[in-house]
Parts: sequence; C-alpha cells; structure tokens
Amino acid sequence: MEKIRWGILSTGRIAGRLADTLRSLEGAELLAVGSRSLEAAEAFGEEYAIPRRYGSYEELAADPDVDVIYVASPHSHHYAHTLLCLEHSKHVLCEKSFAHNALEARRMAEKAREKGLFLMEAMWTRFLPHMVRLRELLAQKVIGEVRVIQVSMGFRAQVGPEHRLLNPELAGGALLDVGVYPLSFTSMLWGKPERLDSQAYLGPTGVDEQAVLLLGYRDGRMAALVSSLHTPTNMAAYLYGTEGYVEIPNPWYRAKRLVLHKDGQAKTLECPYEGHGDQFQAIETMNCIRAGKLESEVMPLAETIAIMEVMDAFRAQWGLRYPGELVEGQRTAGEG
Amino acid sequence: MEKIRWGILSTGRIAGRLADTLRSLEGAELLAVGSRSLEAAEAFGEEYAIPRRYGSYEELAADPDVDVIYVASPHSHHYAHTLLCLEHSKHVLCEKSFAHNALEARRMAEKAREKGLFLMEAMWTRFLPHMVRLRELLAQKVIGEVRVIQVSMGFRAQVGPEHRLLNPELAGGALLDVGVYPLSFTSMLWGKPERLDSQAYLGPTGVDEQAVLLLGYRDGRMAALVSSLHTPTNMAAYLYGTEGYVEIPNPWYRAKRLVLHKDGQAKTLECPYEGHGDQFQAIETMNCIRAGKLESEVMPLAETIAIMEVMDAFRAQWGLRYPGELVEGQRTAGEG
Repeated sequence: MEKIRWGILSTGRIAGRLADTLRSLEGAELLAVGSRSLEAAEAFGEEYAIPRRYGSYEELAADPDVDVIYVASPHSHHYAHTLLCLEHSKHVLCEKSFAHNALEARRMAEKAREKGLFLMEAMWTRFLPHMVRLRELLAQKVIGEVRVIQVSMGFRAQVGPEHRLLNPELAGGALLDVGVYPLSFTSMLWGKPERLDSQAYLGPTGVDEQAVLLLGYRDGRMAALVSSLHTPTNMAAYLYGTEGYVEIPNPWYRAKRLVLHKDGQAKTLECPYEGHGDQFQAIETMNCIRAGKLESEVMPLAETIAIMEVMDAFRAQWGLRYPGELVEGQRTAGEG
Repeated sequence: MEKIRWGILSTGRIAGRLADTLRSLEGAELLAVGSRSLEAAEAFGEEYAIPRRYGSYEELAADPDVDVIYVASPHSHHYAHTLLCLEHSKHVLCEKSFAHNALEARRMAEKAREKGLFLMEAMWTRFLPHMVRLRELLAQKVIGEVRVIQVSMGFRAQVGPEHRLLNPELAGGALLDVGVYPLSFTSMLWGKPERLDSQAYLGPTGVDEQAVLLLGYRDGRMAALVSSLHTPTNMAAYLYGTEGYVEIPNPWYRAKRLVLHKDGQAKTLECPYEGHGDQFQAIETMNCIRAGKLESEVMPLAETIAIMEVMDAFRAQWGLRYPGELVEGQRTAGEG
C-alpha cells in the first residue's frame, strides 16, 4: 500500500497529538510540518521525526509531495488556512470548530468540490468504537425511541483575558471550543434541530464563557447541552429512550464503554481501543482519499455546515460576533 | 411528650406511605382518615390501624381531636382541601405540587396566617440528611461557586389519556408531578430565577408530557432541568462549581450519599437514614406545631409560592392552562 503523505499546519498541542498518532499509523507518512516560525517548525519536526520543516504555511501548502494537510491552527484561522491548502491542491483534514461561521464553512466546502479535493472536519470522537456501537444500538431501537439527550462538556479555564480561549479575535469562548462537541454529537444522532433556546454568560472579554443549549426536534425530542469554561462537569452523555437509557460515562467523547440501563438493570458494553483515539479519523481520511471520495459519510460537509448554522443561531441569540468572521459580500485574501 | 394527632385526607398510594411512616413515629398518633367513600376509608383504616374513618373530607376536617391533616389528594384539589382543613382550624401538611398556580398558593398561605395555623408544602426530600449535608457543603464553598445545576427527573408513564398523570382536569403533566422536584431543589439552593427558557412537548390531552427547563440567575449561573413522563432518566443531580462538583446519585431526591468530585478524585460522603425518608418532614411539621410556628424555615410558604410562580411562567410559555385553576377575581366554594 502506497503511503499517504501528511503535512501538519501549526505546531500546537493538538497538532502534536495527531503527529504522534500518524507516526504509528500504517499507511501514513508524516512528511512535513509548517509553522509561522522556522524555529517552531524545527523543534516540532525534531520531536516527531518529521523530515521537512517549513517556516511558513505557504511553503508547507506548496510542497508537491504532500497529499493531505491537517489544519490545526486556532479556529479563527481555519478558513484562510484551509483555502490556502486547497488552492495548492491538498486534501484537508481541518480541526473543529471548522470555521467562524457557516458562511466560511460553505466557502471551504465549495472550494474543495471545485478543486475535486477531500475535505473533512476533524470531529475525531465520531469515529470511535463506542460511537459506532451507539449508532448500532439506537438503530436497533434497543432503548426504544430516544426522547431526551443530556450532555455536558466543561472544564475550568484558569487563563487570562488575552488567552485564546477568551479572546474574541481568536473566536474564543465555550461554544466553538467545547460546545461544538455535544452539538456535533446531537447532530450525529438527530440531525439539524428545528428550535433553539439558550442561556449564555458572556464574560468581560465579550465571549460566551458558559452556556446551556436547548435543541428541539419533531415529536417533542429535545437535547439539553452544557458548555462551560467556568467549571468541570461530569463529562457524561445520556440518551433517554422510551425503553431505557444509554449512559456514556466520563469522558463521553472518548469513552471505552457504554452503559445500557434497561428494566432496572445496568449492562456495561465494552468498546475498547488503543491509543488516543484520533487514529480513526486519520484512517477515515486516508480511506476516503484512496477511494477518491471528496467527503466522509460519517462527517459530511453538509452536516458540518449545518452545525455551524446552529452555532451562528445561538450566537445571534447572544449578540456575539467575532471581529474576524467573514460576512456576506466580503472579499478576503483567502478567496483570491 | 403529648402526641400530635394526625388525620390523613385521601387514601391514595402517597397517603399510604406517610400513614406507614406516622405509625412508627414517636410523638405522632395517626387518629383519622377521610375519603370520598366510607368503604375506602374503612379499608385504609384497617390497613394502617387508624381508629376513626370518615366517608367525607368534611367529617375528617370537623373532627375536634385532630391536630394536623396531611392533604394527599391530587394537586388539582389541594387548594379546596387545604382551605377546608384550615377553616376547621387544622394545621396542614399539603402534598406537592402545592396548588394549580401561585394565586391558589397565596390564598392558602393567607388563610393559614389569618387563622394562625401551620401550613407547609410536603417537599419531603428537602429534609433528608443528604440535602442537609449538601447545604452545609455549599455554604462552606467546598466546590467553590456553583455555576451550573443539572438535574433530571423522569419515568415512563404507561397510562391511558384518562389517567391522572395526563388529565388536564386533574392538572396532569410532567411539570406538577415530577418537574416540581428539580424546580424546588434549585429553588432551595439559589432562590427564584431571573430568567426562564424552556421547551415542552404537549401531548394529545394537552398537558406537558416532557420538558426541559432552563433557569437563569445572576452572574451567569444556570440550571438545566429535565422533566419527563416519556422516559426513565438517570435521576441524578449535579452541581458544577468552580472548584469541583457534587454528584447526587440515582435517586437524587432520596439518595443516601453524595459524591464529591474534586482535584480529579471522587470522594463518597455517606448520608444514611432508615425508612422511606418522609419521616423528616413529619417531624419538622410536629416540631413547628409544638413550637407554635406557622411555617417551616426549610420549606417556607413564600418559597412555595415563588416555585408556583415559576411553574406558572413556564406554563404561560407553553400556553397550558388547567380547566380547574383559580383565576384572579374568581370566587370559589373553598373561599366561602
């Protein structure tokens, strides 16, 4: 099997995690890394044994031997960096949140289709064994009809106002950083909601430091999601059905078991895997590229766009706009 | 110690539970029971060894030897039955939900004050050891500042449309039957919310069969409560604070332990008690009566009224009115 040659754009913590995974992945070759500074690229390349190291994202994107680029920069830069890679005819796996807003996401998807390239949001948790098992269980109506989804995602961010997490210029706040996980989870199971209600706390820097998100669906199905940078939460997910419920224990987004509660009994279903868990999205990316697919059926672009639309709608409720987000009619460097 | 002589109004399941408790309670004498039929009163009296059995609520209320009456009829009748007992100079412990709406609750409280009688909503769970312990822990800021409260209360009601739970004439629906528990719990900790958002599913009979309730408080504190007759839930409560979180495990409303999650550790705090747990509210009732108090500091009437106001506001959001509820300006038999 010919190896898929990867480039990594950015050298942050999350970039290091996938770099680590790619090194151990059959069929993958970690060829190049690009950073805003050559020094950082050299250090990262040294740590993860990456032969080619570039002091600019442009050079990385221009490397003719790179097949696919993992865009791991802050989400405020995903739009520009993904377009840069696509313009240089690279397939792209782009970190979540995919963009500032749905408009950017649509432009990214259009560009990928126009160029005939693979593009996917790196919602890695969706590809894990427990999520595959969960989708099977629900399809088999093991707990009847799911009526309520309850998920929390939170931690206490002890950072100053200039930190990425709280900086509106970098699209900070809980929504795009942690809220996207339960939102994408609910979307995976139920698709796009018909009604949205919410409460948010906007902190001193103007971003949502905490929110509760309510999603309404037909037939009275509803989801209540907690997203917080103020407090740790139990990090569990619950799917309440007419015939019982499924608990995904802490940490639900990368759990190795499900607990099926039915008829007064609790049954643990083991869903083991090795490693960090982001290997599954890398494998999916490579399988799609080898098969000539432009998107993944598990994390399709239309759904990524729909999730961004939901986040846009919540932000509209809160009056929260990011200074850097693309607005309709605007031309940007990235669009050439 | 002279015994407090109890009467029980109604012979339903919940009446049987407190009857059972009162029999074993020092300082209590279960003297009388009243039902709409003498037959039911006799059967109930036989089962719980109650000497006086009345075929009408009026006779029970008129018994000069009864000190306090436990009103255990459906909540659609609490208003009339409580006023009946107060008019006959009986102290009253009235089941939750306290009334159809805040207007009725206010009238009940006014009547009790006017007559100089004790009156309390039977929110028994509030008096249990784990709730006492919880209040202590939070006062000591053991988990810092609580930012989010997440509670679910649900079961699958497999009943027909004529059943009390679904019958609007009897103030059916999830809100007054199960939603009141997490609402009262949140009220106990944070008082009256400043903002309410919700989603509800109104079923074929017109009552809320399921809802998610969002309560907003100052400083971005928020509570997300699930109330359902469609599905069992995990029946756990979580209090997420800046320094950790407290889990009250299933069933949270009568749990015998708390789990304190802090610094990556989970510490179980045992809060044991014997029996069903409703003895604590009976003891509180008798202590207050002996001390000449007209209300309990743990479950004061102003708070019961405020909780009813919150439920009124949620119902207004859903367009749900009960045919039998008192409206401003209306005169009823109970008010004579």
